[in-house]
Amino acid sequence: MTDRVQACIDENQDRFVEELKQFLRFPSISALQQHDGDTRACAEWIKDHLGGLGFEAGLIEIGGKPIVRAVRRGKSAKRVVIYGHYDVQPEDPLDEWKTPPFEPTVRDGILYGRGATDDKGQVFAHVKAVESLLRTEGGLPCEVIFLLEGEEESGGDALARYVKQAKDELKPDAVVVSDSTMYDANTPALTYGLRGIVALEFIVRGPAADLHSGAYGGALANPVMVAAQILAACVGRDGKILVPHFYDDVVPLQDWERESFRKLNFNDAALAKELNVPRLHGEPGYSTLERLWARPTFEINGLHGGYGGQRSKTIIPASATAKITCRLVSNQDPVRIRDLVVEHLRSVCPDTVRLEINEFGASPPVLFDVNNPTIRAAQEALRQGFGRETVFIRCGGSIPVVSTFVEQLGCPVVLMGFGLDSDGPHSPNEHFSLDSFRRGTKAAAHLLQTI
Amino acid sequence: MTDRVQACIDENQDRFVEELKQFLRFPSISALQQHDGDTRACAEWIKDHLGGLGFEAGLIEIGGKPIVRAVRRGKSAKRVVIYGHYDVQPEDPLDEWKTPPFEPTVRDGILYGRGATDDKGQVFAHVKAVESLLRTEGGLPCEVIFLLEGEEESGGDALARYVKQAKDELKPDAVVVSDSTMYDANTPALTYGLRGIVALEFIVRGPAADLHSGAYGGALANPVMVAAQILAACVGRDGKILVPHFYDDVVPLQDWERESFRKLNFNDAALAKELNVPRLHGEPGYSTLERLWARPTFEINGLHGGYGGQRSKTIIPASATAKITCRLVSNQDPVRIRDLVVEHLRSVCPDTVRLEINEFGASPPVLFDVNNPTIRAAQEALRQGFGRETVFIRCGGSIPVVSTFVEQLGCPVVLMGFGLDSDGPHSPNEHFSLDSFRRGTKAAAHLLQTI
Repeated sequence: MTDRVQACIDENQDRFVEELKQFLRFPSISALQQHDGDTRACAEWIKDHLGGLGFEAGLIEIGGKPIVRAVRRGKSAKRVVIYGHYDVQPEDPLDEWKTPPFEPTVRDGILYGRGATDDKGQVFAHVKAVESLLRTEGGLPCEVIFLLEGEEESGGDALARYVKQAKDELKPDAVVVSDSTMYDANTPALTYGLRGIVALEFIVRGPAADLHSGAYGGALANPVMVAAQILAACVGRDGKILVPHFYDDVVPLQDWERESFRKLNFNDAALAKELNVPRLHGEPGYSTLERLWARPTFEINGLHGGYGGQRSKTIIPASATAKITCRLVSNQDPVRIRDLVVEHLRSVCPDTVRLEINEFGASPPVLFDVNNPTIRAAQEALRQGFGRETVFIRCGGSIPVVSTFVEQLGCPVVLMGFGLDSDGPHSPNEHFSLDSFRRGTKAAAHLLQTI
Repeated sequence: MTDRVQACIDENQDRFVEELKQFLRFPSISALQQHDGDTRACAEWIKDHLGGLGFEAGLIEIGGKPIVRAVRRGKSAKRVVIYGHYDVQPEDPLDEWKTPPFEPTVRDGILYGRGATDDKGQVFAHVKAVESLLRTEGGLPCEVIFLLEGEEESGGDALARYVKQAKDELKPDAVVVSDSTMYDANTPALTYGLRGIVALEFIVRGPAADLHSGAYGGALANPVMVAAQILAACVGRDGKILVPHFYDDVVPLQDWERESFRKLNFNDAALAKELNVPRLHGEPGYSTLERLWARPTFEINGLHGGYGGQRSKTIIPASATAKITCRLVSNQDPVRIRDLVVEHLRSVCPDTVRLEINEFGASPPVLFDVNNPTIRAAQEALRQGFGRETVFIRCGGSIPVVSTFVEQLGCPVVLMGFGLDSDGPHSPNEHFSLDSFRRGTKAAAHLLQTI
């Protein structure tokens, strides 16, 4: 990044923050119908803002909330898609906000407001990076296409449908996603792996109705006990998953990854304290970060059967229902894993009950090669923007849109986040450090110049 | 029983049935406040009826519904307490009754009405037995004390409190309880064993709140999985309870009991079909009747943790709660068993979570010596009344008032039931065979003459 781009970003910072505040004032809560007008007004505003920067900007109406699409050609033939979302989470609980969620306020260098970090602040860093490049360099180094969706927080699929439709015209050299986090306040990070997920439920059905436990206790299998025995046969007490062949396709951690994670000095005791558990626990032979980022899980999300009220009720429950999700890592195939789990559930279920299995969604894990030149360019851009070494991290969660980009566009996806988990996305008093906003803007500018 | 007693019962049967219908017309539903007046009117009616037979009859007001107490001396110094209850279950679902629940109706020799079998019909058999003895023999062979409570169906403790208070003046030689069943329509039965019960719940507490299963999955123990693992460590897949020393004090089945149960030709396949389960299941080495009547159980009554709605929610639940009841058999001590279970739960629970245990009620099992002369007299009385061999059975459930009699009065308790489970106690179209009513009256008369 040239000195004049840096200087432009520094000199215009106050105005950039005022403009970001305008963006944040829209209560673009996509989950709430009464905010449909606000959500659309927000889309119009950021579209017009990009139009004002010389972008060919429009709203793509494909069902659901409009997608803001803004294109501007650059000096090179390279094309970069910048992804983000302009919708936000609901604001409740409202009475826990120190200042109103849609009246953005700066206190001690921190900007408070719904959407500050997730995702308007991060999107706007890219917008202001583009503006600064145009002001100082007279054009963009490469073609930039903004794709800003309006239903990320409400589980819509408009963007995925659009990307599938438009993949032949989009054909980018890279996608940049700023909807993730740094490792910590002092450590910029590139996320090179996301876990996949597969979801299902099983129902153990016993007698036609709850039975009197005195009259019938001892005569038949208790469906809740059978469910417990099935689940105990899926994960050992040591944390190892017992489903045969479950780990077969897992890409083992490489030495540099284990070393790199180790250097992050993750504090197990601090997390245990934060979560209020006696101690952490998981698959033996792996550190906490390794388990979170690079190992699959078998998690019970819910288990319900029989009486749940006060004190006691003397019944044998008629059934029990267990909800299961497995987080997956490369190269686990969600469909194969689901089949293995279903087969295992059936094999450990006794013939004294009936077992019903319902399959829900599945999405694949993602793992990028950190030696890809685009990823390396992003690493250098973050180093330039933040003035600190950038670490490679993975993420325990799943970002479905990233899988869509990987599957449909087949190009590198850069996950460069400027926020922090502690910024309170989805919580009251969501905020974004103005220092991170400025440094993120510089990193974004640098990336476009070197990608 | 003399021929003239038999003849008296046969000759007066029509009147007895008409009087029983009067008893049944009171909607003495103790659980429903709007029927408090009806319940009291019913108590007054049966009290006055016994008064009309020369009993010194009154209502004991000890809090809760009144207890009908009626005493009449007899020729011998022996004293028999006859226990029953004049309250009934609510009548709903009302639209499933073929004739109104409180308009008793005879169809094909069967008397339909709420309370017909549970327990007014059975109580009235004893009342009419006493009347027949007085008419034909000029007096009672022994002293008889009726104790008829009005809150058996609503879980009141007035009778238990009264028995504790009055145990020194009551001091009976035997208590007769007709609130149970025959083995089947053709087989009168004496119940010589009841299971006890101990109830508790445990709560596995993990993180302070539900956590995102992507962000945290793999870092900590899942409380629902821990609950499942704990439960699976309590009962083996073969049905054997794994709590150490759980079976230590169980009185083994005697050869005559196994032989006697075997002769009852219990049909496993029929029960499996009735309950709609693929097959029955339980502790290895015991028949179904043996498991139901003479073996203890460890039953999950309910297990709840995490998400229970539609489809999927990607959380690690904060906690899981399991409700447990164990049915006990002689000589298991409920307090010792509870201590063993609690100790086992604590010993198998890992230190990755916090375990909370809440203890609820406990009541001891009951097992009578079938060679006791009173029990033998009752066996002969049933044989005389029903003209068939009487079998000795046990009951998988618990009747708390029987434990109270055993503990407070220390005398034999005769559990002679004239009803059937298929009479529909607690269900619409409750009924009682008039043939059983007549035979039960004869059996009751014979018992008082020979006890």
